[in-house]
Amino acid sequence: MAGGDQQVSPDAFLAMGRGVIASQPFSVLVGAEMHQLSRGSIDLQVPITDKLKQQNGFVHGGVVSYLADNALTFAGGTAMAVPVVTSEFKINYVRPAIGERLIARAKAVHVGNSQAVCTCEIFVVQDGEEKLCALAQGTIARLQGGAAESQ
Amino acid sequence: MAGGDQQVSPDAFLAMGRGVIASQPFSVLVGAEMHQLSRGSIDLQVPITDKLKQQNGFVHGGVVSYLADNALTFAGGTAMAVPVVTSEFKINYVRPAIGERLIARAKAVHVGNSQAVCTCEIFVVQDGEEKLCALAQGTIARLQGGAAESQ
Amino acid sequence: MAGGDQQVSPDAFLAMGRGVIASQPFSVLVGAEMHQLSRGSIDLQVPITDKLKQQNGFVHGGVVSYLADNALTFAGGTAMAVPVVTSEFKINYVRPAIGERLIARAKAVHVGNSQAVCTCEIFVVQDGEEKLCALAQGTIARLQGGAAESQ
Amino acid sequence: MAGGDQQVSPDAFLAMGRGVIASQPFSVLVGAEMHQLSRGSIDLQVPITDKLKQQNGFVHGGVVSYLADNALTFAGGTAMAVPVVTSEFKINYVRPAIGERLIARAKAVHVGNSQAVCTCEIFVVQDGEEKLCALAQGTIARLQGGAAESQ
Repeated sequence: MAGGDQQVSPDAFLAMGRGVIASQPFSVLVGAEMHQLSRGSIDLQVPITDKLKQQNGFVHGGVVSYLADNALTFAGGTAMAVPVVTSEFKINYVRPAIGERLIARAKAVHVGNSQAVCTCEIFVVQDGEEKLCALAQGTIARLQGGAAESQ
Repeated sequence: MAGGDQQVSPDAFLAMGRGVIASQPFSVLVGAEMHQLSRGSIDLQVPITDKLKQQNGFVHGGVVSYLADNALTFAGGTAMAVPVVTSEFKINYVRPAIGERLIARAKAVHVGNSQAVCTCEIFVVQDGEEKLCALAQGTIARLQGGAAESQ
Repeated sequence: MAGGDQQVSPDAFLAMGRGVIASQPFSVLVGAEMHQLSRGSIDLQVPITDKLKQQNGFVHGGVVSYLADNALTFAGGTAMAVPVVTSEFKINYVRPAIGERLIARAKAVHVGNSQAVCTCEIFVVQDGEEKLCALAQGTIARLQGGAAESQ
Repeated sequence: MAGGDQQVSPDAFLAMGRGVIASQPFSVLVGAEMHQLSRGSIDLQVPITDKLKQQNGFVHGGVVSYLADNALTFAGGTAMAVPVVTSEFKINYVRPAIGERLIARAKAVHVGNSQAVCTCEIFVVQDGEEKLCALAQGTIARLQGGAAESQ
């Protein structure tokens, strides 16, 4: 994703981010909703529906890792304000995701010229209460120009 | 997932694994297909369709991380032959996923009493050729009994 | 390391932690100093000396990863208050370590019955100013009893 | 480290690598020995001595993570043949390091223009037998020119 214009209003910036989500078919399939977006910070949510579950009735870990991946990338991309790719991330699951909604909050912790290191906390909302569900940390890299680059 | 019976035939073991996939609504949503399963080893694939993509026409990183998560868990769960949960994993993306199909091959590298450490390679098939797309490594933990455990 | 007694005073708890560091020959070799220790939280430091450097005059990454490993383990071990082992961690380096001192601050973010997930920030002090140098996240596991366990 | 000349003989390439190790005071302190080095591949070892241990008599995890860090960096640096830095890595410990010697074998799994993704297996030699002790995966990045870059 591209980083976006620094001069736009907070509402316009969020609308820009929502436009990116709307243009990602997989995010639409999962049902992702962007609730906040600013330079280096995002709140990305997914209402829990049956189609997102695994055999035990919990949300599938792949949904949680999708959220981590996408939230980290927005945090890093908006922080660097250049086109980026997700280079890598790591996720620890600490609790089964059972409830009404997943909330991923990611932020850029260090922003360099070529990459940003970001962290993400993912909560599950159960009976209106947020509980930590997973923790992620990863690297968002500036997209290298040129067709020769395979990253 | 449960580990499954060690005494069953290879075909029955694969059928058991396919049954687990079929019982995971999110795996059905993504379109996952199990092509091989044995103790500590799996080949899990996803045919690439438009709904799995992001805004650039590549497969969304969240699909790739879903595949890594699920393949690692099957590798660890079948290796330990007990009910397990995915504790954590790390993924490096090395190439945009463009092509016809994703193939995740995971194996258990070390199996202990309480956890297995597994690795996974994810390839994208493009014009019939497999290209490495991502690399993952993670921990699959034996499910602790008792409601007090929040892991 | 064992978790330690919950009833002791803060000073006695810190003294207990310093005793563990003093009993780790590698920590003595590196020159680690414990500046704070409480349940699930630690400040572990290393004064930078020439023997800790690599060929460019920076502190070797291995020193930084040692600090992350040890700080994460103390954070998790004191949080769980049982004997633990470091199961795994991930570290992102964000800045070359140039300066007078390294400071690792780790905390337990989630504590379960069988493991704790901890995060760690590592700073380098340069001309009296702290700068983020690395970021780590990992799992500290309860030590399983019995000789059969190879973890 | 710089990548080195592609035209040199295997012996000269190994000698170059050993020269880098000898110029790293921390590697000398730990006692690292390079046993093999080629483009994208390394065997780096550490004889186990008492000063490398923790309070239980095992080798300190920080020594194992040092080995992973350094071996990954040599694998990536020689594969890219440009000056590099270690961007990040992840390590899973699977067995306490008890024995005579640690052996880290790392290789570059994917080499791009701006980074290489590498994996590393670390074994402990006990009574002459190699046992897997830890597993690592990480990113080695091309060093960006210019003082403005803080990575």
